[in-house]
Amino acid sequence: MDIAKGLIAIGAGLAVMTGMMTGIGEGFVAGKAVEAIGRNPEAEGKIRSTMILGIALSETCAIYGLLVAILLIFVF
Amino acid sequence: MDIAKGLIAIGAGLAVMTGMMTGIGEGFVAGKAVEAIGRNPEAEGKIRSTMILGIALSETCAIYGLLVAILLIFVF
Amino acid sequence: MDIAKGLIAIGAGLAVMTGMMTGIGEGFVAGKAVEAIGRNPEAEGKIRSTMILGIALSETCAIYGLLVAILLIFVF
Amino acid sequence: MDIAKGLIAIGAGLAVMTGMMTGIGEGFVAGKAVEAIGRNPEAEGKIRSTMILGIALSETCAIYGLLVAILLIFVF
Amino acid sequence: MDIAKGLIAIGAGLAVMTGMMTGIGEGFVAGKAVEAIGRNPEAEGKIRSTMILGIALSETCAIYGLLVAILLIFVF
Amino acid sequence: MDIAKGLIAIGAGLAVMTGMMTGIGEGFVAGKAVEAIGRNPEAEGKIRSTMILGIALSETCAIYGLLVAILLIFVF
Amino acid sequence: MDIAKGLIAIGAGLAVMTGMMTGIGEGFVAGKAVEAIGRNPEAEGKIRSTMILGIALSETCAIYGLLVAILLIFVF
Amino acid sequence: MDIAKGLIAIGAGLAVMTGMMTGIGEGFVAGKAVEAIGRNPEAEGKIRSTMILGIALSETCAIYGLLVAILLIFVF
Amino acid sequence: MDIAKGLIAIGAGLAVMTGMMTGIGEGFVAGKAVEAIGRNPEAEGKIRSTMILGIALSETCAIYGLLVAILLIFVF
Amino acid sequence: MDIAKGLIAIGAGLAVMTGMMTGIGEGFVAGKAVEAIGRNPEAEGKIRSTMILGIALSETCAIYGLLVAILLIFVF
Amino acid sequence: MDIAKGLIAIGAGLAVMTGMMTGIGEGFVAGKAVEAIGRNPEAEGKIRSTMILGIALSETCAIYGLLVAILLIFVF
Repeated sequence: MDIAKGLIAIGAGLAVMTGMMTGIGEGFVAGKAVEAIGRNPEAEGKIRSTMILGIALSETCAIYGLLVAILLIFVF
Repeated sequence: MDIAKGLIAIGAGLAVMTGMMTGIGEGFVAGKAVEAIGRNPEAEGKIRSTMILGIALSETCAIYGLLVAILLIFVF
Repeated sequence: MDIAKGLIAIGAGLAVMTGMMTGIGEGFVAGKAVEAIGRNPEAEGKIRSTMILGIALSETCAIYGLLVAILLIFVF
Repeated sequence: MDIAKGLIAIGAGLAVMTGMMTGIGEGFVAGKAVEAIGRNPEAEGKIRSTMILGIALSETCAIYGLLVAILLIFVF
Repeated sequence: MDIAKGLIAIGAGLAVMTGMMTGIGEGFVAGKAVEAIGRNPEAEGKIRSTMILGIALSETCAIYGLLVAILLIFVF
Repeated sequence: MDIAKGLIAIGAGLAVMTGMMTGIGEGFVAGKAVEAIGRNPEAEGKIRSTMILGIALSETCAIYGLLVAILLIFVF
Repeated sequence: MDIAKGLIAIGAGLAVMTGMMTGIGEGFVAGKAVEAIGRNPEAEGKIRSTMILGIALSETCAIYGLLVAILLIFVF
Repeated sequence: MDIAKGLIAIGAGLAVMTGMMTGIGEGFVAGKAVEAIGRNPEAEGKIRSTMILGIALSETCAIYGLLVAILLIFVF
Repeated sequence: MDIAKGLIAIGAGLAVMTGMMTGIGEGFVAGKAVEAIGRNPEAEGKIRSTMILGIALSETCAIYGLLVAILLIFVF
Repeated sequence: MDIAKGLIAIGAGLAVMTGMMTGIGEGFVAGKAVEAIGRNPEAEGKIRSTMILGIALSETCAIYGLLVAILLIFVF
Repeated sequence: MDIAKGLIAIGAGLAVMTGMMTGIGEGFVAGKAVEAIGRNPEAEGKIRSTMILGIALSETCAIYGLLVAILLIFVF
């Protein structure tokens, strides 16, 4: 192996870290959903569908990072 | 491969990390939307459209990073 | 051992750090669930199932990181 | 390629990370706007225009970073 | 000793840092449990069992990191 | 190009990152302004002028960083 | 001394940093306990025992890090 | 140019980053001022003068960093 | 002096940084204690003793780091 | 110039960053003072003096960092 | 000067950064004290003494870091 390959591995590791904070964001969405259901259990359907939509939109950031990581490992 | 290529890979990894915090921001928007729907389920339409607008505006930051990452990988 | 292998180890270490913040996010979900049960103990079933769903969705981010780490250690 | 070019790529990657936290800030603005509309749906016009003004002012920070990144890649 | 071994040690150190934020998340769960018991002491059983479940689920992130650290030290 | 130039590029990248957190701070100001208008729509003028004053004062930090980045790129 | 030993020392330093955030988490638990006692002084026994249980569970993360640090210094 | 100059540039970049968080702190002051004016518009004078005093005191931290950065660039 | 000694110094610097966040955690405990006394001044004794117990438990994390730093400086 | 001088410059840059978070802490004090004056304008004297005392005590941390930075630049 | 001296300077810079977050923690204590005085001005004596005790306990973390920094500069 040569050193450049090792540096690319670090780059890939950094790239996938993009999803790091998404974990907080999604946890926040889910936490607020749990709180809202505790207050208003009848609105469970609406709350859960908005929760899943919000998490799906947030997930895009993590996927950008995964994409660049995969791209660095297999293509670069 | 040469070392410079490996360093560029690290640069690209750092660049795409720009989107890292956007995940929190978007999660915050979605979490507040979930909370607001739990309180006031009739205003669901307005809340969800503002949520998507807010997430779209926040997404721009993540896209700047992705753009610079792509630019470093394919153009630089 | 050669240096590149050491650099890949650093890359793997960075990659698995993706799951770092997920720990906060999941803790937030669980904390809010605990709070909601303290307020409204009868809704325990709904709250706990939403909590587990939210944690499962957040877990995906940590798994992306673990996947890239494993991929860097065994495949790259 | 020479090593200096690789180091400049890292510099550009760091520069564009300036926009990282702006994603949280803008998410906070949008989240508060969603919350305010949930409480007071008639004031939607004023709230949304203040939200867009606030996001535009915050965006300047991300743009400083993008500017320095572009400057490092194409001019330096 | 050779340098690669030192770099692997750094990688292992980074990997185990995954559990860093889990400490906040779990502290948040426990803090909310303490708060909920202060408000509603009769629901202590339910609150404490949900707290332990939530902490166990959050712990998985820290364990991913520990696993990769052990894997880098003994296997890589 | 020589290596020192690359290192200066990294220094400039770090310097402009000073503005990173300003994005959160300004987002906080704007978010609170949105919230205050949602509660008290008649005070919109006073709130918006204080918001712009506060953002202008916070912006100084980001400008210090931009200044040092420009200074490192063109003068150093 | 050789360089690898120095790098292992850095690895150990990073590993023990795992406990860094645990300090916040535990402080949060204790802070909430203090708050709950201020509100409801008769429930002091239950609150304090849950506080100690929560801190003990959070402490595990810090101990993983200490373990890997010790392992890197004396075994690796 | 020689390498030491490049390293000093990195040092200066790090030094000016001291002001990074000040942006949050000042944003917090301004955000709270906006909130307080929204609640109590007659106290605008007192609130705004305390806000400017608080921002001026916080600004000192950013100025320490700028000072050391300037000192590293021109004197060291 | 040789380079390894310098790297060990960096390791020790990182190790003692473990106590960094403990400062926030302990500040949180003390802040909540101040708040609770402001609300309920008669419970000052109980609050202050729980505060000191909580700070003592949090302090352990900072001490792990100090221990590893001392260990790296004098023993390694 | 020699390389060691450049590394000392980085050390000084890191040292002065100690004051980074102090900016948040002081901003928090000032923000809370602004909030308290908005609620209770007659207590302005007491609030402002406590605010200045609190900021002065927090400032010590930033001064430790500045001291070590100055010490590294001029004495080391 | 030799390189090891420069690396020790970086280690000292990192060590003194331990006090970084203490600034937030102490700011939190002072901010809460300001808030509590705004609510309950007669309890000023008790609040201020608890505030100073809490800040003194938090300060220990910053002092560990300063101690290791001084130790690295003058003894190591």
